[in-house]
Amino acid sequence: MFLPRRILEEKLYRFLREDVGQGDITTSLTIPKRAFAEALVVVKEKGLIAGIEEAMALCESLNLKASALTLDGAPVEPKTAILRISGNARTLLSAERTVLNILSRMSGIATSTNRVVSKIDSAGFKTRVASTRKVAPGFGFFDKKAVILGGGDSHRLKLDDLVLIKDNHIKIAGSIRSIIQKARATASFSKKIEVEVPSTSDAVEAAKAGAEIIMLDNFSPTEVKETVSLLTKEGFRSRVLLEASGGITEKNVLNYAATGVDIVSIGEITHSTRAMDLSLDIVKVKK
Amino acid sequence: MFLPRRILEEKLYRFLREDVGQGDITTSLTIPKRAFAEALVVVKEKGLIAGIEEAMALCESLNLKASALTLDGAPVEPKTAILRISGNARTLLSAERTVLNILSRMSGIATSTNRVVSKIDSAGFKTRVASTRKVAPGFGFFDKKAVILGGGDSHRLKLDDLVLIKDNHIKIAGSIRSIIQKARATASFSKKIEVEVPSTSDAVEAAKAGAEIIMLDNFSPTEVKETVSLLTKEGFRSRVLLEASGGITEKNVLNYAATGVDIVSIGEITHSTRAMDLSLDIVKVKK
Amino acid sequence: MFLPRRILEEKLYRFLREDVGQGDITTSLTIPKRAFAEALVVVKEKGLIAGIEEAMALCESLNLKASALTLDGAPVEPKTAILRISGNARTLLSAERTVLNILSRMSGIATSTNRVVSKIDSAGFKTRVASTRKVAPGFGFFDKKAVILGGGDSHRLKLDDLVLIKDNHIKIAGSIRSIIQKARATASFSKKIEVEVPSTSDAVEAAKAGAEIIMLDNFSPTEVKETVSLLTKEGFRSRVLLEASGGITEKNVLNYAATGVDIVSIGEITHSTRAMDLSLDIVKVKK
Amino acid sequence: MFLPRRILEEKLYRFLREDVGQGDITTSLTIPKRAFAEALVVVKEKGLIAGIEEAMALCESLNLKASALTLDGAPVEPKTAILRISGNARTLLSAERTVLNILSRMSGIATSTNRVVSKIDSAGFKTRVASTRKVAPGFGFFDKKAVILGGGDSHRLKLDDLVLIKDNHIKIAGSIRSIIQKARATASFSKKIEVEVPSTSDAVEAAKAGAEIIMLDNFSPTEVKETVSLLTKEGFRSRVLLEASGGITEKNVLNYAATGVDIVSIGEITHSTRAMDLSLDIVKVKK
Amino acid sequence: MFLPRRILEEKLYRFLREDVGQGDITTSLTIPKRAFAEALVVVKEKGLIAGIEEAMALCESLNLKASALTLDGAPVEPKTAILRISGNARTLLSAERTVLNILSRMSGIATSTNRVVSKIDSAGFKTRVASTRKVAPGFGFFDKKAVILGGGDSHRLKLDDLVLIKDNHIKIAGSIRSIIQKARATASFSKKIEVEVPSTSDAVEAAKAGAEIIMLDNFSPTEVKETVSLLTKEGFRSRVLLEASGGITEKNVLNYAATGVDIVSIGEITHSTRAMDLSLDIVKVKK
Amino acid sequence: MFLPRRILEEKLYRFLREDVGQGDITTSLTIPKRAFAEALVVVKEKGLIAGIEEAMALCESLNLKASALTLDGAPVEPKTAILRISGNARTLLSAERTVLNILSRMSGIATSTNRVVSKIDSAGFKTRVASTRKVAPGFGFFDKKAVILGGGDSHRLKLDDLVLIKDNHIKIAGSIRSIIQKARATASFSKKIEVEVPSTSDAVEAAKAGAEIIMLDNFSPTEVKETVSLLTKEGFRSRVLLEASGGITEKNVLNYAATGVDIVSIGEITHSTRAMDLSLDIVKVKK
Repeated sequence: MFLPRRILEEKLYRFLREDVGQGDITTSLTIPKRAFAEALVVVKEKGLIAGIEEAMALCESLNLKASALTLDGAPVEPKTAILRISGNARTLLSAERTVLNILSRMSGIATSTNRVVSKIDSAGFKTRVASTRKVAPGFGFFDKKAVILGGGDSHRLKLDDLVLIKDNHIKIAGSIRSIIQKARATASFSKKIEVEVPSTSDAVEAAKAGAEIIMLDNFSPTEVKETVSLLTKEGFRSRVLLEASGGITEKNVLNYAATGVDIVSIGEITHSTRAMDLSLDIVKVKK
Repeated sequence: MFLPRRILEEKLYRFLREDVGQGDITTSLTIPKRAFAEALVVVKEKGLIAGIEEAMALCESLNLKASALTLDGAPVEPKTAILRISGNARTLLSAERTVLNILSRMSGIATSTNRVVSKIDSAGFKTRVASTRKVAPGFGFFDKKAVILGGGDSHRLKLDDLVLIKDNHIKIAGSIRSIIQKARATASFSKKIEVEVPSTSDAVEAAKAGAEIIMLDNFSPTEVKETVSLLTKEGFRSRVLLEASGGITEKNVLNYAATGVDIVSIGEITHSTRAMDLSLDIVKVKK
Repeated sequence: MFLPRRILEEKLYRFLREDVGQGDITTSLTIPKRAFAEALVVVKEKGLIAGIEEAMALCESLNLKASALTLDGAPVEPKTAILRISGNARTLLSAERTVLNILSRMSGIATSTNRVVSKIDSAGFKTRVASTRKVAPGFGFFDKKAVILGGGDSHRLKLDDLVLIKDNHIKIAGSIRSIIQKARATASFSKKIEVEVPSTSDAVEAAKAGAEIIMLDNFSPTEVKETVSLLTKEGFRSRVLLEASGGITEKNVLNYAATGVDIVSIGEITHSTRAMDLSLDIVKVKK
Repeated sequence: MFLPRRILEEKLYRFLREDVGQGDITTSLTIPKRAFAEALVVVKEKGLIAGIEEAMALCESLNLKASALTLDGAPVEPKTAILRISGNARTLLSAERTVLNILSRMSGIATSTNRVVSKIDSAGFKTRVASTRKVAPGFGFFDKKAVILGGGDSHRLKLDDLVLIKDNHIKIAGSIRSIIQKARATASFSKKIEVEVPSTSDAVEAAKAGAEIIMLDNFSPTEVKETVSLLTKEGFRSRVLLEASGGITEKNVLNYAATGVDIVSIGEITHSTRAMDLSLDIVKVKK
Repeated sequence: MFLPRRILEEKLYRFLREDVGQGDITTSLTIPKRAFAEALVVVKEKGLIAGIEEAMALCESLNLKASALTLDGAPVEPKTAILRISGNARTLLSAERTVLNILSRMSGIATSTNRVVSKIDSAGFKTRVASTRKVAPGFGFFDKKAVILGGGDSHRLKLDDLVLIKDNHIKIAGSIRSIIQKARATASFSKKIEVEVPSTSDAVEAAKAGAEIIMLDNFSPTEVKETVSLLTKEGFRSRVLLEASGGITEKNVLNYAATGVDIVSIGEITHSTRAMDLSLDIVKVKK
Repeated sequence: MFLPRRILEEKLYRFLREDVGQGDITTSLTIPKRAFAEALVVVKEKGLIAGIEEAMALCESLNLKASALTLDGAPVEPKTAILRISGNARTLLSAERTVLNILSRMSGIATSTNRVVSKIDSAGFKTRVASTRKVAPGFGFFDKKAVILGGGDSHRLKLDDLVLIKDNHIKIAGSIRSIIQKARATASFSKKIEVEVPSTSDAVEAAKAGAEIIMLDNFSPTEVKETVSLLTKEGFRSRVLLEASGGITEKNVLNYAATGVDIVSIGEITHSTRAMDLSLDIVKVKK
């Protein structure tokens, strides 16, 4: 998800603009025009950092100097300084909250994603952890980037990323078989085709019809396991990816990982994020 | 926070645009151009609804028919249908996720805000519950609106809403006394002046210097209580509002409310939101 | 009203874009691509300067060098050079009119604001001079900033700055008393509440109901004075600010200032601005 | 200057967005969601109306009903109602100031333009009255439209409207003769070429070199007259238009009109506008 | 590539805005404000129509009535009327050129795409015809949609559609094998991985390393054929798609189709489009 | 058509944004974050270069170093390197296609324009070659600039550039005579008036009514010649410009040039552009 700097900056300015409104009235009343300040962004709890690139891009484009003291994707301990920012004090203070909000939400997402990924790794499974499109509206790009930094899979960010036929498409358009055949005939060869199914038998039908990825929606771990077995038996296992989705959380994820499913997708890592606790501390001042 | 419809729509389109990308490739491959669908948005858990106005504005501006089955700010039980949407099936499906993301985040915030507010009310306290500027970047307006629907106080959304002198301003600009005096002399009469203080003695100094609101930052409940007593004794209590902030959560909020402080501000209701679980179920189809 | 540079630049580009259209056809036909020019912006009449920060931000973002020869808010005599700009001649000429329009409107507003402020000061009164929302549409932010540089009070720039209950709200929503009570119960503690009243008795009612600022609308100086007296007598004077508004001009402002009212608001300083006469003179050329 | 409605609306939303900020907090606190109101926009002084089309476009796009009670370009007497607006009371109140600001500035410009035009007409001259690019930044389109409604000539709105070689171009690029020849050789045939000259002899040189319009910059009426005579004598009068510019005001305009010059351009009608006094009165309410 | 109407309209307004500039000065000077006109868009040459949906969306959003007389993707004969538009004459004339430009470019692309597709079909081959990212900047979405309507494959519109490792990536990042392995390990499971190769041996290496699509860049038909044979022999044919690219045109396409390659991609259908000849004829007028 | 750099950059970012989507997924997966690359843009065929300024502006604004190896408007032979670009490899690769698309379309237009211009020059005629408004929607500014670099005349880019009364205006608004008179009476003096006519007699009527430019629409060369003669005979030739339009191509243009008409306008140079074949070759890499 590489963006040229200026395109990234445009996305970040939206957040700054919303937070600044028609101007930082406190700062202009209290801080001398040319005062200089240096600050550290300090982490107050253990976790995985994300948002360093974004924070630096925003600061630098405002003519603040920014030095990363850690890397995106790196684990940190409490009380670690992760970013040094210095420059015009008014600018620094007016951007403070936006910078912190970006870092704390992205780091929160990276941290919880990584907790799930590590749990699966430690248990010796190979299952991938994917996010859903249940992001904070307007911040989806950054939510997804945080998932990747946490070791997860972005899955779709947008409706143009993948052909993903869900229950509502099937309800409107007809049988799983016919809808997959139609999609295969007309979709671009550059796109994968995934189908959401409610039952093992539908999973088999989807595999027969040529789906490349099958989403097992709201299956219990036992049902996932049976589906994996059946698809293996019928010879489809090597050419379809299986994704378990619905009701999977950090708590029950190992039960799903143990089924041999390829991917588990988890909504809570983006829709119910716990932000990382961070602060910006002024460490030097020149007036 | 009333916005004329078209101004609100512009905000909502940003979210839809991000989610749709260059087009809903699944829907265009599988759903007939003129298919009609009717759907219900159904709540899967208990909570307080927010985002109905936004969901309806977005749907209606896309020529979908939307009927509210509940009101913004109303409590709901699990399995309640809160919104009926009907119209062109392609349009409906391509807007589904954006509509659900708005509703589930806003309702999540309203619900957790309301839980805190109710807890304080039930305990017989009058303390107001305020949010902070720790919102999802780009979604701040809606986060704040959800707080209000949950019975909370929006506090600042933007840096132009209030003069709020924080620790970092003081570090750069000098003493509490001098900075408040400077702000009072130059701020618009239309704005209130709030000061964040780290100690009881600073609270007294801030009150003397003319602060209209004093934020007691990271005070223990005991320290808040002592500060309230001292300010009362010194005669400032009737003309300053006191806000406790920092480390306050749903769990410990009653300890703060019991101190007689006017406002408690809580970051977690917006920065660590738990989204409400919602789904959109197709209930009628015409091709 | 401090804005981070890039956010300010975005506002300024709107003006440049409108003035440039699809390109400066004269300049591209007549000026060599790499010609260099240096110019002075010269004031032709006495006044108070505003817009230097904006002019410099615009020029610098276009890679022109800009040096302020005076400060925002400083008084100038005729024939004073206030700004030196140098760099690519095509860029300089294509930005000339936008730079001059910003400087001349803002300086015009600062000058007339300052004339009123000085008149009141010289007469020994403490009355604040406030502007209204009667600004040039799209240029409001800069109109307000010019007012402040002229020594005036910005008052509201936007409808989210202050709760200001006007005659039309009251006509629609009911009695002054009930509407203030409703507002006080539901408004954020971070916002002041002002009420516009048409009579002395309504002013008293508003004070009783808890208004923090009372706007005396279209009162004669005598009526203002009587209202001040009555409110003083009834003990409200120390906790309400009084603003006289409607029909106040540079000519009659001392009559209002003499009443003891806290604020006078004057529409003409922004809605009927006289622009300052300025020109941009090329002083050096290199081809 | 006809714009398709939606393109016009986009321009108008910028103004509304700036005035509304993050929401009309007064209206949402005091006015019931579904309250209905009807209002009249009433003129308080004599003048010429402009901005009706814009006010209606803005109101209608916000789902308010708007009926023009007068036409753009029509003269009005004090106390005339010029526009009836009705619909949702919250929407109406939140758009009130933007609507009034547009109408009052545009009508102010149309009125003063028309006063100059009428003065010239009454004196029996045919001189056209043109505006300059000295407009309110961001509102230039509407300033120019108001000039046209007042009977004036828009002249250039943007740098792509006309090749207009000014003193600064000549200072940088060389002699009047060579610069005109260069422009004629390379400019599009679809564009006119105008040259600003500081003296009668330069006017003759410009005419010889092929300028289609010659701007006599800061000429006294006597100098204009002499230039007109000389150009007539030399046979250029029938193929060049002459524009007098610089220092021309409503007061001295007849002296210039009397010289036989084709156009007089006047900065003050747009840069030092006097806004028309207008109010919006609620005349009917339903809750 | 389905877009909700309002999102599509925003794209279309960019084009209209560029064409209209600050207003249609001819129309406002010559056409009465409320004149009504009805027009037909008539095709002057044989071809395949595209852009009807876009033309209708633009017209309808401007309050013009639009009726399709043919369908997107349908073949037409010369002198066929394809669209009826009626409504306000000023609006209709100011949108005329934008509507025609969209229809003529899109129909030109659909027509030439379809000519290639039909040629391949008629010869009895199954090869897909894909476009490249060589589109008109800013119009790429519509170029791609026209390709699809002509029976072609959109391929990538954007850099986020597909992992496509090209020669320049390999030059910078290392061997084909290692780069594919790296991509497979870190790319989202939702994305396909394609690799561009310069030789048959590299094609084999790419297939071994796990590429899902292999682009044979600048291969002669003979080389393509040999590569197809070799990959078949080595057992990769059933799990990789082969795309021939570079130097393929309408003229030589059958030579490539005959090789058994899956996809041929052709730049000229979008980068060297021949627009379809269309006109808009007024057929009814009411003043 | 000179634009200040930042205004030009905004136009260019639209193209980059569309091509990049939510990020260059290939580059971020395969290219190290700090890899450096240097590349040459190489022309594969003979032609005239346009777009160097745009390519450099885009690259430089992305912090890439760009050096022009040829000038806009210069002729090139096959295998010429025209631009050197170096810097961060990820940025370079993510901008590659946008840069090439701009250069190849603009150079294609400049080349074909220049071929027509040269043909006319070589034949000893003075006829100007003009483009039409038949541009790629959204890319019109650049299409027109390429025409100018190729030696052609931009003609109108937008509806505000010129009063151009076309057949459809006349059909709606009445006779040629009355419509020209109306336009002359009300159009700004700064704008030329052109009229499109279908016959020689209408051309004479238009000249009599005061048109400054007459467009002879769909005339055969013979008809153009007769019209030129007649207008000369009637004494209008020295004060009207004549433009032949409709059905003129590179093939038949000399027949039109031979008639003595002033301008020939040709749609195909912009609406049916053949892009120039270009590639970007990496020549140096540092990791």
